[in-house]
This record gives sequence, structure tokens and C-alpha cells, in this order.
Amino acid sequence: MHVRVNAATSVDGKLSTRERTQFAISGAEDFERVDELRADFDAVMVGVGTVLADDPSLTLKDADLAAARAEREESPHPARVVADSQARTPTDASVLGPDADTYVLVSENAPDSRVRELERAGAHCVVAGNNRVALPDALAKLESQGVERVMVEGGGELLFSLFADNLVDALSIFVGSMVVGGRDAPTLVDGEGFTDDFPRLDLTDVERLDDGVLLTYDVLGRNGGD
Amino acid sequence: MHVRVNAATSVDGKLSTRERTQFAISGAEDFERVDELRADFDAVMVGVGTVLADDPSLTLKDADLAAARAEREESPHPARVVADSQARTPTDASVLGPDADTYVLVSENAPDSRVRELERAGAHCVVAGNNRVALPDALAKLESQGVERVMVEGGGELLFSLFADNLVDALSIFVGSMVVGGRDAPTLVDGEGFTDDFPRLDLTDVERLDDGVLLTYDVLGRNGGD
Repeated sequence: MHVRVNAATSVDGKLSTRERTQFAISGAEDFERVDELRADFDAVMVGVGTVLADDPSLTLKDADLAAARAEREESPHPARVVADSQARTPTDASVLGPDADTYVLVSENAPDSRVRELERAGAHCVVAGNNRVALPDALAKLESQGVERVMVEGGGELLFSLFADNLVDALSIFVGSMVVGGRDAPTLVDGEGFTDDFPRLDLTDVERLDDGVLLTYDVLGRNGGD
Repeated sequence: MHVRVNAATSVDGKLSTRERTQFAISGAEDFERVDELRADFDAVMVGVGTVLADDPSLTLKDADLAAARAEREESPHPARVVADSQARTPTDASVLGPDADTYVLVSENAPDSRVRELERAGAHCVVAGNNRVALPDALAKLESQGVERVMVEGGGELLFSLFADNLVDALSIFVGSMVVGGRDAPTLVDGEGFTDDFPRLDLTDVERLDDGVLLTYDVLGRNGGD
């Protein structure tokens, strides 16, 4: 399983405002880059917080990219994956739309009724872990279903869990040229946070894009290795 | 008055861990750069949170830089400035050490006894604002005392206030190649945060340094101008 994180933040590391309102951090060049990147993955993954705040469809915007995937005998769009321990994804969420498969990763404690509703709405529910999704187990189950390359787009709670479990292989961040601020605004990596044994990165590329900069890293993992 | 912010963050915008423990985000090249930068300013400024958490002296580490300032008939070290609305700076704080002048910016509501203690410990207290330091007024008072160029090193609460008041002219951030995480960890710009009318920046330089990258910006201000 190859896991790549891609996200856009303000210079102060924020994914959105404290009110979780969406606004454009990057521009046209970065949108195009992200769409091309998505097309190169088996699945695009987010946490349920992102689904509830932004209701993204996570499909390809450029029809040519979808057509090129179809020509390669792949699904036109990558699958969608939602990490959703308590099965809170709304049944009318855009991420459950008909254009692509959707996997919802739930814990054993997710309410049965909600899991059934999601499955009726077309989701494939993957159960792993007790109260919280056990991500290593869940990703292994995805891989057994042919999902070998996953691009993760946030949010900060999911990213913390993935880094804590040493599951991230690469990271690209578009740093937009604005300040968002806010001690309660969501950041690229939230969760409990690390106090030592920080995940270490290797900066592999620096590129100016739109009015900001794209930073690309390989993840060396915690304790200097993974 | 020229105000420049300089700070180092993890890739996720954190200044330190949720426990506010210090750790090296940058390396030898960046330490040297910051010391040279400090030597080029009349004063180095931090918020009281940084004083309480880190107890920095804010003096030049390289004796040659101090000697060069003295040859230019400047004080060997830049002055220190602490934004400290309630006069909470401990009288034994390193920032009150004898190597340089120290200005403590307090509000009118700061306890008189504490202000007197700080002055006995050698601080110059500058009063501006009722419950919180009025930064525009306080910086104008500093300027009238010959402090025309201030370098601000954090933390996130002070930076938010400075950005909110459109007082920042330039910003340099060393982005270290590690993840810190933590929804409660201090970030480059905390405070209430902006929900619209974000301070906009102009990316003027991108430079690899140590194992990270140094991003330098001019601040365009809120509402596209200041």
C-alpha cells in the first residue's frame, strides 16, 4: 500500500478557518495538479470531518483524465474512502454519489443501523478496530480489494492517525500566501500531536506554483525510519 | 516602524509541541541566519507566552556580530521587547538580563506592583491600551524612543494581534522537515483567527536551508493592501 498525503495550507499551517469555512488557498495551477494527481491513484481518502464540513465529491474534474483512466481499463474516477469510526457520513453526501465506488471505514462500535443505511446508499463498509478505525487493518483490507495506491486529502485528525501509525509514504503541501490564524482553526496535522519521536521527512522538491509554493516530501517515519 | 516576523515551524505550522516543549526545528545554517538577522534590527520582540515557556535571552550568540554593532556605535545587542498586557514577565527572566535594554509593553490594567517590580528589575515599561496592549500605540511609543526596526520571533498570539492590526511588513518562515501535530499545539498565528479578509502575502524568496526551506514574504496586508 502506497499512501500519499496532498493538501493546501496557509503559511501558518491552517486547512481552513476556525469556522471550517472553505476558501481558495491555491489557484488554477494547483487545482489542475491535484486533479492529475488524483487520476494517478486507486482511491482518494478523507476523514469524516472533511465530509461533514465540505461535502466533497472527490471525483476528477477534468473529463479527459476520467476518459484516459477508462482507456486504461480502470474506473473513470478513483474510488473514494472515508475514515468514519462511528459511521456519521450522511447518506446524501456527495462522496456517495454514483460516479465512483466509495469505501467507508468504520469501527465495530459504529451503530449497525447507520452502517446498513450507508450500504443501502451504495457504500462498501469496511470494519476494523473497536471504538476507532484501526487504520493499518483497514488499509490492509482495502489493499486486498485492489486499492494499492491511496491519496489522502485530509483533514488533520485523519492525518495525525496516519502519521502516528507510520502509514504515510509521501506528502505534498501547497503553501498559500495568506495568513488564516486561529488557535482553534484546523491544521494540517491535528489529533493529540507528537511530543517526541516526531515523524521525520525528506524534502524532495520545492516548486513555485500559483502565488505560493509546493513542498514535496518523502516520509522517513518516526524514530528515523519506518 | 518596520516590523519583520521570523520564525521556524514544522510542516504543519507548529511552533512547538502541545506541551510547549522546545526542540530544534531548524539547524546550524538557520541559527546563524537568525543571529545575523537579529543583529540588523533595533529590537527583537516576543510575546509573554514565549518568555514563560522558553525563557529566551534574545541576545546575539555570535560575539563578532555584537562587536560589529558596537563599532557602528550601536548597542552590542538589539533591545528586547516583550508584549505583556498583564505584566507577567518574571523578574528573573533571561530577557531582563543585563546585556541589552528591555521594553515591556503593558496595558493600563497591569497590576501596578508588578510594573514596579519589572522596572526595579531593569525593564522599561511602556503603557498602552486598557486590558490588552494597544500594539499600534505601543509601537509608536517605541519608535519615539529610537526603535525603528523590530524583528518579532513569536509566539502565535502576538503574531495574530500584529497581523490583525496590519502592523507586519515582512515575514520569513523556516519550514522544518518534521510533523509535530496536535490540535492544541501552538501555531505560527493563533489568536481568534481570521474568517475573511485574510492578510495576504507576496512570496519574495524560496531558499533551501539545513534540511528544510526558508520562505520569505512581503505582507500586502488585509483587504489587498494596507
